[in-house]
Amino acid sequence: MIDTSIEYKVHDLITNRFSPREFSAKIITDKKLLAILEAGRIAPSSFNEQPWRFIVANRTDETSFERLLSCLSPKNAEWAKNAGALVLSVAKKKFDHDNSLNRHAFHDVGLAVASMVFQAMSLDIYSHQMGGFSSEKARTTFNIPDDYEPVAVVAFGYLDKEFFTDERLKQQSSSPKNRKPMNEISFANTWGNEISLEHSIKRKD
Amino acid sequence: MIDTSIEYKVHDLITNRFSPREFSAKIITDKKLLAILEAGRIAPSSFNEQPWRFIVANRTDETSFERLLSCLSPKNAEWAKNAGALVLSVAKKKFDHDNSLNRHAFHDVGLAVASMVFQAMSLDIYSHQMGGFSSEKARTTFNIPDDYEPVAVVAFGYLDKEFFTDERLKQQSSSPKNRKPMNEISFANTWGNEISLEHSIKRKD
Repeated sequence: MIDTSIEYKVHDLITNRFSPREFSAKIITDKKLLAILEAGRIAPSSFNEQPWRFIVANRTDETSFERLLSCLSPKNAEWAKNAGALVLSVAKKKFDHDNSLNRHAFHDVGLAVASMVFQAMSLDIYSHQMGGFSSEKARTTFNIPDDYEPVAVVAFGYLDKEFFTDERLKQQSSSPKNRKPMNEISFANTWGNEISLEHSIKRKD
Repeated sequence: MIDTSIEYKVHDLITNRFSPREFSAKIITDKKLLAILEAGRIAPSSFNEQPWRFIVANRTDETSFERLLSCLSPKNAEWAKNAGALVLSVAKKKFDHDNSLNRHAFHDVGLAVASMVFQAMSLDIYSHQMGGFSSEKARTTFNIPDDYEPVAVVAFGYLDKEFFTDERLKQQSSSPKNRKPMNEISFANTWGNEISLEHSIKRKD
């Protein structure tokens, strides 16, 4: 039986990441926003297709920001209006090279976005990803072509430090994330077979 | 017109990442492999569904490793046989809570894998993701249920230092990645509209 209480040392920028709803009004500079986009741009992808596209709305660009905000579900818009920037990710559904369906399109968009999220964390900028938006409205609002599909909206921003007091942040980082235990997601040799890696750890530690 | 030669400072673990084919025979300890899986386990996902599953084959587990290797295309198997570990990612296609189709399943698997790739880099472990494998063979070999879909295979491993001499690594890290320019993937306000963020950078820098 796997002891799921074992903690594996993971990079701070990954463990400290969480999805806040309380963003400060602090502006994300264009330079930082570009560094975040650049982290996505250089991500790997199937056949180097780079199926990701991004509609970018820094809150300094009020028109774009409002347009993207209006595509969110009311519940999300309520807090996302305080984000520093909103980014809509879009996937190109077919490969450039032969127009066949790219079954990794969404996968690779997710990969690029994770890279952006990580880059943001390295700049002390947090993110909150949302599936709760109107894909149809986004398509119309931003004139997205048929061969592309809106995927998700990511809110980027600095933490509202009045809400996230040192005490609350400490609490946040020390409370376990609500996730399935390792033995429900990782299998060895065959489906459902729990990985036995831990046993060697127990021997060593 | 965007000057795509502008470089945005991105975190080393992202910029240094590349997908090698030349892995050393060095073993990845179970503890490190678990830290890599843990980075995926704690990734965010739509409705916190955590649609990712992983078949994990450390090369110390010869049977599992060979089984997973045999699912790869011959071209990939040729170099991936030297990897320290192979991980097959699998997506759960429907939501736990209402059995409806999870259109973000692949997206969220990609997101989790990117987190693992980044964690690996922090341990000096490189990765190479492959779409080139037989999904059907993987399903049969590992007894993957119908409501799950094999996504990709990731090879993890240390660099072969005889191949990646200091000189070659320097060359690798200094050569630009073959990617679409920023203005082809990022738009402001509407589709195809280039982001104007750079202009402010030019003014400031």
